[in-house]
Amino acid sequence: MEKNKGSKTDKWGVWMQRLLESLVEKHRPAAREGKLAEYIPELAKQDSRLLGMAVVDRAGKMHTAGAYRDRFTLQSISKLIALMIALMDHGEEKVFSKVGMEPTGDPFHSIYKLEIAREAKPLNPMINAGAIAVSSLIQGGSVEERVERILHLVREMADNPGIDINRSVYQSERDTADRNRALAYFLKGSGVIDDVEETLDVYFRQCSICVDCRDLARMGLCLAQNGISLRGKRVIPGDIARLAKTFMVTCGMYNASGEFAIRVGIPAKSGVSGGIMALVPGRMGIGVFGPALDKKGNSITGVRLLEDFSKKLGLSIF
Amino acid sequence: MEKNKGSKTDKWGVWMQRLLESLVEKHRPAAREGKLAEYIPELAKQDSRLLGMAVVDRAGKMHTAGAYRDRFTLQSISKLIALMIALMDHGEEKVFSKVGMEPTGDPFHSIYKLEIAREAKPLNPMINAGAIAVSSLIQGGSVEERVERILHLVREMADNPGIDINRSVYQSERDTADRNRALAYFLKGSGVIDDVEETLDVYFRQCSICVDCRDLARMGLCLAQNGISLRGKRVIPGDIARLAKTFMVTCGMYNASGEFAIRVGIPAKSGVSGGIMALVPGRMGIGVFGPALDKKGNSITGVRLLEDFSKKLGLSIF
Amino acid sequence: MEKNKGSKTDKWGVWMQRLLESLVEKHRPAAREGKLAEYIPELAKQDSRLLGMAVVDRAGKMHTAGAYRDRFTLQSISKLIALMIALMDHGEEKVFSKVGMEPTGDPFHSIYKLEIAREAKPLNPMINAGAIAVSSLIQGGSVEERVERILHLVREMADNPGIDINRSVYQSERDTADRNRALAYFLKGSGVIDDVEETLDVYFRQCSICVDCRDLARMGLCLAQNGISLRGKRVIPGDIARLAKTFMVTCGMYNASGEFAIRVGIPAKSGVSGGIMALVPGRMGIGVFGPALDKKGNSITGVRLLEDFSKKLGLSIF
Amino acid sequence: MEKNKGSKTDKWGVWMQRLLESLVEKHRPAAREGKLAEYIPELAKQDSRLLGMAVVDRAGKMHTAGAYRDRFTLQSISKLIALMIALMDHGEEKVFSKVGMEPTGDPFHSIYKLEIAREAKPLNPMINAGAIAVSSLIQGGSVEERVERILHLVREMADNPGIDINRSVYQSERDTADRNRALAYFLKGSGVIDDVEETLDVYFRQCSICVDCRDLARMGLCLAQNGISLRGKRVIPGDIARLAKTFMVTCGMYNASGEFAIRVGIPAKSGVSGGIMALVPGRMGIGVFGPALDKKGNSITGVRLLEDFSKKLGLSIF
Repeated sequence: MEKNKGSKTDKWGVWMQRLLESLVEKHRPAAREGKLAEYIPELAKQDSRLLGMAVVDRAGKMHTAGAYRDRFTLQSISKLIALMIALMDHGEEKVFSKVGMEPTGDPFHSIYKLEIAREAKPLNPMINAGAIAVSSLIQGGSVEERVERILHLVREMADNPGIDINRSVYQSERDTADRNRALAYFLKGSGVIDDVEETLDVYFRQCSICVDCRDLARMGLCLAQNGISLRGKRVIPGDIARLAKTFMVTCGMYNASGEFAIRVGIPAKSGVSGGIMALVPGRMGIGVFGPALDKKGNSITGVRLLEDFSKKLGLSIF
Repeated sequence: MEKNKGSKTDKWGVWMQRLLESLVEKHRPAAREGKLAEYIPELAKQDSRLLGMAVVDRAGKMHTAGAYRDRFTLQSISKLIALMIALMDHGEEKVFSKVGMEPTGDPFHSIYKLEIAREAKPLNPMINAGAIAVSSLIQGGSVEERVERILHLVREMADNPGIDINRSVYQSERDTADRNRALAYFLKGSGVIDDVEETLDVYFRQCSICVDCRDLARMGLCLAQNGISLRGKRVIPGDIARLAKTFMVTCGMYNASGEFAIRVGIPAKSGVSGGIMALVPGRMGIGVFGPALDKKGNSITGVRLLEDFSKKLGLSIF
Repeated sequence: MEKNKGSKTDKWGVWMQRLLESLVEKHRPAAREGKLAEYIPELAKQDSRLLGMAVVDRAGKMHTAGAYRDRFTLQSISKLIALMIALMDHGEEKVFSKVGMEPTGDPFHSIYKLEIAREAKPLNPMINAGAIAVSSLIQGGSVEERVERILHLVREMADNPGIDINRSVYQSERDTADRNRALAYFLKGSGVIDDVEETLDVYFRQCSICVDCRDLARMGLCLAQNGISLRGKRVIPGDIARLAKTFMVTCGMYNASGEFAIRVGIPAKSGVSGGIMALVPGRMGIGVFGPALDKKGNSITGVRLLEDFSKKLGLSIF
Repeated sequence: MEKNKGSKTDKWGVWMQRLLESLVEKHRPAAREGKLAEYIPELAKQDSRLLGMAVVDRAGKMHTAGAYRDRFTLQSISKLIALMIALMDHGEEKVFSKVGMEPTGDPFHSIYKLEIAREAKPLNPMINAGAIAVSSLIQGGSVEERVERILHLVREMADNPGIDINRSVYQSERDTADRNRALAYFLKGSGVIDDVEETLDVYFRQCSICVDCRDLARMGLCLAQNGISLRGKRVIPGDIARLAKTFMVTCGMYNASGEFAIRVGIPAKSGVSGGIMALVPGRMGIGVFGPALDKKGNSITGVRLLEDFSKKLGLSIF
């Protein structure tokens, strides 16, 4: 816990603080069973043993433990932010003419369904193909302007104007993005997107937005409050925030979303940097960071920590 | 509304009654855009223009409209009942060693992923392949005994001991089940199930359990109350009921589950007879029947009616 | 060499005899690298170390080596015989409305393309799905009569009226045919075949026809002579024999046909019993038997022996 | 017939000349049933009604009919030339570690098998993915030098030093190559190729090499003579020419190769410009041009003309 140090004295706060610390301690060793996202050289440099967590409630009380100050990039978590902007820019009809709403059961970088499906559009906005289609819809006069709009929303949600892009991760992604380029060119060939390099530039930059657990927790809280930030500002229309939470449940944890819904039961979105943004509707936002990944690309320690946390507090929405 | 006729006088009851009637009236004409499940001859005989709805609250107040007395078979809705019994019989570990937890994005009778996936097991218990794997796990000394156990749970959930199997639908399914046999033999070849004909016999019978909208509403209520039936009896362990509701959200509406979560946002399970069992956690159970299906196998009028109903009452869990 | 013992004295005959013997000796040890078709219990009982070969020329001179007297079942080699009868029964147009002409690159028991392809029909008559479709076309008043017609053609081609079915292999196949049943029911569901069990019964029986290397060599010679048997009898119309030889080249060695065409370059059809029927157009028929299989289901020693034989004699048709 | 005007007087020459003219006349109207390769703008400008043919024998007698002087680009025909150079540069082992030998049954620009197959390498060098892998293997200090080597071999085979690249087709391909870029980036991501843009530059240029029917006929003759050109010069090693002919039979006509082998029965390689290079081993080379394509990408009139020609002269190698 930081920020509201006084609240440490209240019993719940103390209990919560100890809970987070004990959970981080308990699950950190499992990092050994996972591995870093080695296909992006900058991510491969992370310390795989880290594990941190932050939880913020509606009153703004922030509890933290472990590596909660360590910074990491949003990666796939940014897909959700971009989706909300695309929806604000174009409305549901246009956006969902380019990308579907269905979970796939396939790995995030899968391409085969684009060919064998009856329709050329990606199945949902949380797989890479769908996220690339969404990024192509973000409006703005230039790549910089388009990315600035994503950054702006992240800063507003996280109530942190200091959030920015990690340039070396961005360079690293851009230079090792063969599969994403394959997806983007396939989508261009099918008429789903128009410009590959510009779209990918937006996509790689949004993936490289750099945050810590506390930022993710406040972003989660903003969604938990249907688009109203911790400071009380409406930064996302309520129906779009609701839609985002729904995608978090059905597709937020790659092709482990079904299992996560059963085992944890709260809206969450992960990234291959090891971050997970989660939330309990109307109650709290949660940020987790543990860069050792399981086979499906989710933080191996983060998922276990969240399962334990959810079960201890009875947080499942189901 | 039936059952508690006195309550018709209260304002909410009257309003609710009118709402259901107006919704049924409004959406019935869309049946023209759908079509019956013609591959099962008995289902092809249904009157495609029917639409009925029943809603029951925790106090047992039942509101109804349209064809709420018409009877139809559970079909895929039975997959959820069988799953809960398999979990009671064997526990999560055994059940999920035979079937996964992930939505697929593919049609319910799809087979190709059984071949191209790294693991032979079906992706989830709500697609036919997964449901067949689950039915193979239902314990009992004979097919009759195994089916009796499923029937028993349906009767308990619906608080209706008169529920039984529709023999002519059962015969009809059994005789026209080529794709399901293909799935079952494939699963046997991969070691997921042992006995094809016995398993399919259980499966076809459970699909042929015959209910009306009020039964579905009470069954939904039982899940909404985490396994406690309208009469206050615990008929399903709480954690298994929760797990069932989670599958309803992620995989309950075939490969339209993602869209249904966004547009309607409540746990629901559909069947190709045109039935939908839905619920609002802690609040109400809902039964809908409209046999004209959309392309993915869901009641075309039922889905629209539920979307309207959910939006009018703000029922989405997201 | 047997049959025409006198010819052993001629130089070519002696040279050929020695060649076959040395080739068998050379390639037999590689059997260790393969394994028996263990999914059919009766085939799993074969002696995996066996290797035999027989070559017959137009004059009827037969050269043999190794396990050339050992008997084995036709398995997939029968697909070619059944195809020729179906073509005699119905003509090309009808047959190729049920099954395609294209090699697939997929394993012989693959099912996924039946679902994802635009057309429901199997890609060719040499994969199991296609062969089952072909067997459904064999005319006759009963399963026995239909199989008798296949047996009859085999006997005519091999000039051996003693050829018959191995009942225990037939029983064994029938009892362990889950994948083939899956394929057959899928085909029935798509309207490609009408009766599953009857069709499979024909199919399993034709697979269980029992021959030795000399029979295969004479059958190959019959095709090499465009349908005229060793005794000079026309047993297959010329255009159908030609078509069969073409399928041998494009699809005869499962999904190793392309490589076989390059490395060996002669028409050949293999079976999972370890048999290979091959031929040199206008010149000779060849029978090989080596039950240890490579990963694609072809005799591991048989393929190497044929490659060596073809290169030494310059037999490639390309 | 041109070139050797004197031979027009011999009977066979006159008969052949009349045959070609009548075949072109007979099949030209079918162009209406096909359509141009519209995804490459320059190819979409061709006159879809054209049909031409040239046949050259070992003595150099050339017979021609129809649009035999019209020029068109090699397109996929160049895949065969590039394969032969890659084999000369690296040998079979290296080349076939990057690309397989099996026909696929899938369209030429298909990508899905690269993902679902156990091995990342393309199934054969005649589909686009495989051809791109092959082009990456052509040695040379620069793209220009590498293309120059391909051009050189085409000129030698065709005995025509004037053959060159059509720059506007090259530009057009390069600018509309989304699917090919998707394939190339996928291959790079799987470690099959190293440099996408350079490889594609070689690939698009080789596709844009411009010939007429007579060139194709002489190129076919060179292969028919196992690598010895019309002038008697060995321009391709015999074993590589034989391998190329084998691929023509198993994969030369896209996913209609199996049917072409049955109906026509001679080695042939088509391109989406409407050209087909064919040959009769040891006897003749054939060039055909008809830019209206069937659904699989082969000249609709060209295929029919060749079938008719092959049947009239009994040319099938099977």
